[in-house]
Amino acid sequence: MADLEISTLHASLTDRALNSMNFLNEISHHYPEAISLAAGRPTEEFFDLDDIPRYLSRFAAHLRERGLDEPTVRRTILQYGRTKGIVHELVSRNLAVDEDIHVAPEAIVVTAGCQEAMLLTLRALRADATDVLLAIAPAYVGITGAARVVDLPMLPVPDLDELLAVVKAARADGLRPRGFYVMPDFANPSGRRLDLATRHRLLEIAAAEDLLLLEDNPYGLFPAAGVDRLPTLKALDTERRVVYLGSFAKTGLPGARVGYVVADQTVSTGGLFADELSKLKSMVTVNTSPIAQAVIGGKLLDCDFSLTAANQREREIYADNLRVLTDGLAARFPGGEISWTVPSGGFFVVVTVPFAVDDALLTKSAREYGVLWTPMSHFYDTDAPVNALRLSCSAVTPAELQVGLDRLAAFITDQLVLST
Amino acid sequence: MADLEISTLHASLTDRALNSMNFLNEISHHYPEAISLAAGRPTEEFFDLDDIPRYLSRFAAHLRERGLDEPTVRRTILQYGRTKGIVHELVSRNLAVDEDIHVAPEAIVVTAGCQEAMLLTLRALRADATDVLLAIAPAYVGITGAARVVDLPMLPVPDLDELLAVVKAARADGLRPRGFYVMPDFANPSGRRLDLATRHRLLEIAAAEDLLLLEDNPYGLFPAAGVDRLPTLKALDTERRVVYLGSFAKTGLPGARVGYVVADQTVSTGGLFADELSKLKSMVTVNTSPIAQAVIGGKLLDCDFSLTAANQREREIYADNLRVLTDGLAARFPGGEISWTVPSGGFFVVVTVPFAVDDALLTKSAREYGVLWTPMSHFYDTDAPVNALRLSCSAVTPAELQVGLDRLAAFITDQLVLST
Repeated sequence: MADLEISTLHASLTDRALNSMNFLNEISHHYPEAISLAAGRPTEEFFDLDDIPRYLSRFAAHLRERGLDEPTVRRTILQYGRTKGIVHELVSRNLAVDEDIHVAPEAIVVTAGCQEAMLLTLRALRADATDVLLAIAPAYVGITGAARVVDLPMLPVPDLDELLAVVKAARADGLRPRGFYVMPDFANPSGRRLDLATRHRLLEIAAAEDLLLLEDNPYGLFPAAGVDRLPTLKALDTERRVVYLGSFAKTGLPGARVGYVVADQTVSTGGLFADELSKLKSMVTVNTSPIAQAVIGGKLLDCDFSLTAANQREREIYADNLRVLTDGLAARFPGGEISWTVPSGGFFVVVTVPFAVDDALLTKSAREYGVLWTPMSHFYDTDAPVNALRLSCSAVTPAELQVGLDRLAAFITDQLVLST
Repeated sequence: MADLEISTLHASLTDRALNSMNFLNEISHHYPEAISLAAGRPTEEFFDLDDIPRYLSRFAAHLRERGLDEPTVRRTILQYGRTKGIVHELVSRNLAVDEDIHVAPEAIVVTAGCQEAMLLTLRALRADATDVLLAIAPAYVGITGAARVVDLPMLPVPDLDELLAVVKAARADGLRPRGFYVMPDFANPSGRRLDLATRHRLLEIAAAEDLLLLEDNPYGLFPAAGVDRLPTLKALDTERRVVYLGSFAKTGLPGARVGYVVADQTVSTGGLFADELSKLKSMVTVNTSPIAQAVIGGKLLDCDFSLTAANQREREIYADNLRVLTDGLAARFPGGEISWTVPSGGFFVVVTVPFAVDDALLTKSAREYGVLWTPMSHFYDTDAPVNALRLSCSAVTPAELQVGLDRLAAFITDQLVLST
């Protein structure tokens, strides 16, 4: 007999979202030789272990320049530290430079990756069983999972045009929509970005309906070749309707696990929403590793706060790969048997096929064809079959991409035969 | 009007535990010149920024010795990584060497500090509104806060002799006691340690009542001078009744924010409890910064897995300070006006006084006497007045301790006059 019955543990542990993440991790470990068009990890092309001491030294020098004595410099990096973080001022400057977002450092909570920023925000916003979170379907698995962990139900919004209707229907059902989670730039998994008019419209709805927008922006610095960036929701936000979820995993260094949340909303207690999130953080992770923060802080100082400039080479890699991916699909499927998105940036392309794509097919693709991808069904909160899969082009070389596409084409072609 | 009403946010945000932590942090920032007998931080005596690149190099060399090629070494330290961590094998060896605890590396989840280990464990164990956590009162604020964040009520156990009665009473009330949180070695805040017979008795109760013991052990390596260590509950645990919460904050480096949980319990799904905690972790922090893990991994390799050996100097400092503290109290209060504990190790002494000790008194002590300490009321989950305060001796020199004690004696003496 087992020591613990799963039925006596928290319901999220049997939920699709948490097991989905687990399954996807496991399959990639199980087929290490397969080419992965599944992983959304950043390129490892420029990884350099020597960067870490270099960034640490840069950050320590910055502390000295600010007048801190040696014991205080050492304490800042090596001791327990401020719950809201030690690189908040540097993050604030980076947001001004890269995003034209102007917020007080005190409105920023530095987190153990963007995932903790999501978790803290959803935990704060879930007061009772009537609270719900809205999100575009398909949605990033990380937000669905974080919502499950804090017992916050999610209502899918199939299309932005329906947002208002979903809000009103939820209210009619006695529910309290707390926020709308959205990735306006090159979303995971859809690859879509919202046009400027839609961004303004979203802010209008947020104001009219007294709704927070939870803006997640991991991919904004990576538009496709020739595509200009659009302002983030937070840059357009004049009424503090946007909670901005920030990540350095793709633009800084994933191994630092440093993210942040901008929460400049005022709270009736007199402080900022960031201060409430900080209280929660003190009971979740106490503070974000100051060593890890110093690495990111050093990188921000090193690039004079412009991660856009620091990621020029990465941007070109992703833009090239995205072109190779969509051109490669066009070359291999000239006849219209399948369709795919041609995103204006980011890491992800969605391929629609005339058959349901499930985990069994992924396992078959990995085992028999040597190529990994992600069933789009993982990004929906229902058991309904989904005829689509997500391809990622961030963690492969163009040559691997070509081989991966050959394998994928063979797999899809075989499936097309089987499904007719 | 504020953007957010506090009443619409999660109840933990108005809870004593979360605001207590906040208040204690704020007062120490507000009176930086005061001598702090409040902070439970480890000594900064041996902090050295050069340790970080040294430990990182040591860990990278270890990966190479294990046959990993350079891209894989870089990826292991700089990329997203395994949810359960990358230093689990090293932690397992450290537990064998320092604690005579023998567990499979797969039963370990490396966490963003021990606080995340607590949060994940409590989240997993809270399935519905009948679940409760038991803990000795006074209890560490971090466990109370984590319980609040996951909506898990805590039942105080005033004395270990009453544990069984509290369990039975809870069951009679339709509640389900999920675990008993305990710090058997030099507990925060009481300073107490459990004798060997009590440890065995606790394991017997856990077996008889089908209760998990959540053992937290941040101070075990720091017995007072001449005191021998006792085996941890986990070292005595033959039936997987103990979930072991581990911290490197005091024995490794606080700035790494690396902790772990040993959860070798089997679950009816076929895996280990550690695997369920890992699923939750993927939605809380994704993974613990591998850079931070590499720092701790390098330190573990550097000391050949014996943190006992690596912390010999620290142990002497804490033991000396503890003696200075208790001797200093005896010298200043020879007449029995107040009493205090003489712990057999750790950082904390509890002083009992004939007046209620609250936050207003702490503020007065900080402002007028220049000495900080912690009201014991912060460690109880009720509003009842508590006539005691906690002193910590870990983050001060013996000279500072003497000055701090002079100031504390002046403060207490004045209060004794006022209260008579």
